[in-house]
Amino acid sequence: MDKKIGFHMTVEEFRQQGRKVVDWIADYYQNIESFPVLSQVQPGQIRASLPTEPPFKGESFEAILQDVNRLILPGITHWQSPKFFAFFPANTSGPSILGELLSAGLGVQGMLWATSPACTELETHVLDWLAGMLVLPDKFKSNSRGGGVIQDSASSASLTALLAARERATAFQTNQQGSDGRLVAYTSTQAHSSIEKAVKIAGLGVKNLRLIEVDDRFAMQPEALARQIRLDRQTGLIPCFVSATAGTTSSNALDPLPEIGRICRQEELWFHVDGAMSGTAALCPEYRYILEGLELADSFCFNPHKWMFTNFDCDCFYVADRETLIHTLSILPEYLRNKASESGAVLDYRDWHIPLGRRFRSLKLWFVLRYYGIEGLQYHVRQHIKLAQTFAGWIQEDARFELAAPAPLNLVCFRYKGSDEQNQKLLERLNQSGDLYLTHTILKGGFTLRFCVGQTLTEERHVVQAWQKIQETAVSL
Amino acid sequence: MDKKIGFHMTVEEFRQQGRKVVDWIADYYQNIESFPVLSQVQPGQIRASLPTEPPFKGESFEAILQDVNRLILPGITHWQSPKFFAFFPANTSGPSILGELLSAGLGVQGMLWATSPACTELETHVLDWLAGMLVLPDKFKSNSRGGGVIQDSASSASLTALLAARERATAFQTNQQGSDGRLVAYTSTQAHSSIEKAVKIAGLGVKNLRLIEVDDRFAMQPEALARQIRLDRQTGLIPCFVSATAGTTSSNALDPLPEIGRICRQEELWFHVDGAMSGTAALCPEYRYILEGLELADSFCFNPHKWMFTNFDCDCFYVADRETLIHTLSILPEYLRNKASESGAVLDYRDWHIPLGRRFRSLKLWFVLRYYGIEGLQYHVRQHIKLAQTFAGWIQEDARFELAAPAPLNLVCFRYKGSDEQNQKLLERLNQSGDLYLTHTILKGGFTLRFCVGQTLTEERHVVQAWQKIQETAVSL
Repeated sequence: MDKKIGFHMTVEEFRQQGRKVVDWIADYYQNIESFPVLSQVQPGQIRASLPTEPPFKGESFEAILQDVNRLILPGITHWQSPKFFAFFPANTSGPSILGELLSAGLGVQGMLWATSPACTELETHVLDWLAGMLVLPDKFKSNSRGGGVIQDSASSASLTALLAARERATAFQTNQQGSDGRLVAYTSTQAHSSIEKAVKIAGLGVKNLRLIEVDDRFAMQPEALARQIRLDRQTGLIPCFVSATAGTTSSNALDPLPEIGRICRQEELWFHVDGAMSGTAALCPEYRYILEGLELADSFCFNPHKWMFTNFDCDCFYVADRETLIHTLSILPEYLRNKASESGAVLDYRDWHIPLGRRFRSLKLWFVLRYYGIEGLQYHVRQHIKLAQTFAGWIQEDARFELAAPAPLNLVCFRYKGSDEQNQKLLERLNQSGDLYLTHTILKGGFTLRFCVGQTLTEERHVVQAWQKIQETAVSL
Repeated sequence: MDKKIGFHMTVEEFRQQGRKVVDWIADYYQNIESFPVLSQVQPGQIRASLPTEPPFKGESFEAILQDVNRLILPGITHWQSPKFFAFFPANTSGPSILGELLSAGLGVQGMLWATSPACTELETHVLDWLAGMLVLPDKFKSNSRGGGVIQDSASSASLTALLAARERATAFQTNQQGSDGRLVAYTSTQAHSSIEKAVKIAGLGVKNLRLIEVDDRFAMQPEALARQIRLDRQTGLIPCFVSATAGTTSSNALDPLPEIGRICRQEELWFHVDGAMSGTAALCPEYRYILEGLELADSFCFNPHKWMFTNFDCDCFYVADRETLIHTLSILPEYLRNKASESGAVLDYRDWHIPLGRRFRSLKLWFVLRYYGIEGLQYHVRQHIKLAQTFAGWIQEDARFELAAPAPLNLVCFRYKGSDEQNQKLLERLNQSGDLYLTHTILKGGFTLRFCVGQTLTEERHVVQAWQKIQETAVSL
């Protein structure tokens, strides 16, 4: 890119424009509180502002960047706003953004060890670090029979776990012969929808997914699981997979992993633990209890792209037996053969997930771990949990509101003591104000508001302001 | 990020460090030709240089960036080097890198329209632009019954197409009841390994994948396909999916899409066309012929992250009937319900692929299309093809070498006229030199070198140097 080659950007232009984009992002974060959190555009509005046809002649980078302000920004829902309390966090950070930038600049493909050894080895290394930081069982580390890999999402991680479970249960014959409609998977009624999606994709069929009843705290009932497994075996079905959740999306319920794990060991089922958001809490010794029972699991995932200051995508997926996983997903066309792979001395991560290609995602994770240190990450996790707990306290002290579920960590489910319609109206008015963004769920049949604290920049004042706004708006109902 | 909050990077530090990373990348591209293309490290070498434990105290960003040079760079295989002729290109560009940076900075989740309308609408818009630029049939545009979406890879796109095919063939009953081992998929013996992987994942089983014979040019034989479909129907199986390739990975063979398409229409099979690398060539009218027959297809994909200056991941996947796709993959938990989705006025891309979460990938694609314009993209595609054709000419003129397959576009398969061992040795010596990077395949049983021209910075001099090196090294055999 040193001299002008054809239509490419020169190195000098890249330096100049790169600075402008860095400054654009810095300015964005300086002004982020001024934007309505939830985008206020109407369907079709963004498209209507864009030219129908692509340009024949190239345009200046300045013109493009100006259009980001003019055309794109109104259509952004500001996930990085400190006033974002919806869904789950997707928090990012300076070191992560710059790690992603560097990865894009290097532009390597990490499908095989040989196609960039650092991409594979740094990933293995950083996932081992994280296994230590979360005090995962040793079997999940790469110096045992297991190991970790970065997936795009917990959805893909769950699917990958299910596929390995399917193959283990059928001696790798489903890969060869196809499904036969007899394999059964289990999760709770409160589990993430990705398990249903995985069961469809993997050819088990929804009729072979058992949604196990939960207790009053929305946690899976182990006796119900054990009962259902027995029933299924009696009818000639083949139970193969249980997915438990450490912090459900809906209400942050913590499934009883030790009890579920013991059933899985006894029944020889693959035990997957989904800790997508809440797994991060285990960085702090006082919250490590949420992963108790993991020593009985076959696989585990959590998402630094949710609550560990690492931009999407970055799901960390661990297996206790990497050979089963690799055997499940491996393909070996001639054009990918190479000496290093055949030596057996290296890992080729293409066999650990669905896509073949993969970018250098461990770079940003490495940046985050080093920049914050264990100390920094623990500090911010504790801050978020403290703010959520403060908020939960306010809900409990105010007679007009009630908690709708236990709030063990950073998610508070609550209701205005009124009708579902009133709660729905409350949510809509809050979100339309642009002053904060919440989402909802249904718990025990009732419309419930979810308040999730986890954005990078959220401080006490944002939670205070949110609570004031909620109170004011409730008065207007 | 304005003032120091806990351990986060401040806005001012982000500005400073951001400039340093931009400069790092600029310097990297200025020096890129000085690195051995294929990393020369030994297995385990990178890991051995990293500290066993993560830091408790955070470190300075300067220290981290210095370690990229010291610890990471030796383990990089330089995909962006102009001397990279291996596998397929994964070319990137200044506008794309900066688009990725901006996307990381915004940090939005595009799983639903409402979670950032611009993320969905820009994607739909840019994919419609590209449909026009490649002269795709109108049915693939969003104003018809079809539409485009960005997937992470052609592997995922093929899997997604197969799943939709599976459900269409069984009236959406496989999702419910599970596979029954009777569905059959078809592709050629030369197709990408991702089709085999998809057939395993989707529960069809490899025994239900038919690898159809190819002709002398490595293109699928339509009569063999028709014959096999008849045979399978006779034995009570249910043919459902054909994947043809516009430019195979191994040798760039072009399957006869019109003939295959007619068979698929007649037999009512889902017809997927994989144009992962070569689809980009259709930007130029003189190469548009490679996609003739696409009007008979149900789905199509190509990868701007291969040969269109857009960094990974960015696969563009088109379907002619989006309702079938959405019906196949849709899940609707309460916590994702929202007014916009229920109005039916918007697309929610979470239902178009396997993961739920998705980042703002259309931003970089928009940057590339606008910065280069149609003119710029056409220019560079033509340059790459011209350079490959020049190289093919040299092979043909040199009595010591021979072409091993037709070279219609930017990939040249060739052999040194000698033993397989000699060709293998030639490949190893070339790659160990660090002066260029090639990979191989097997064609008609013979070890074959692949020379693929497509990196952003490759100019005539790099191809000339590569050819000189190949000749010199051949002499030493």
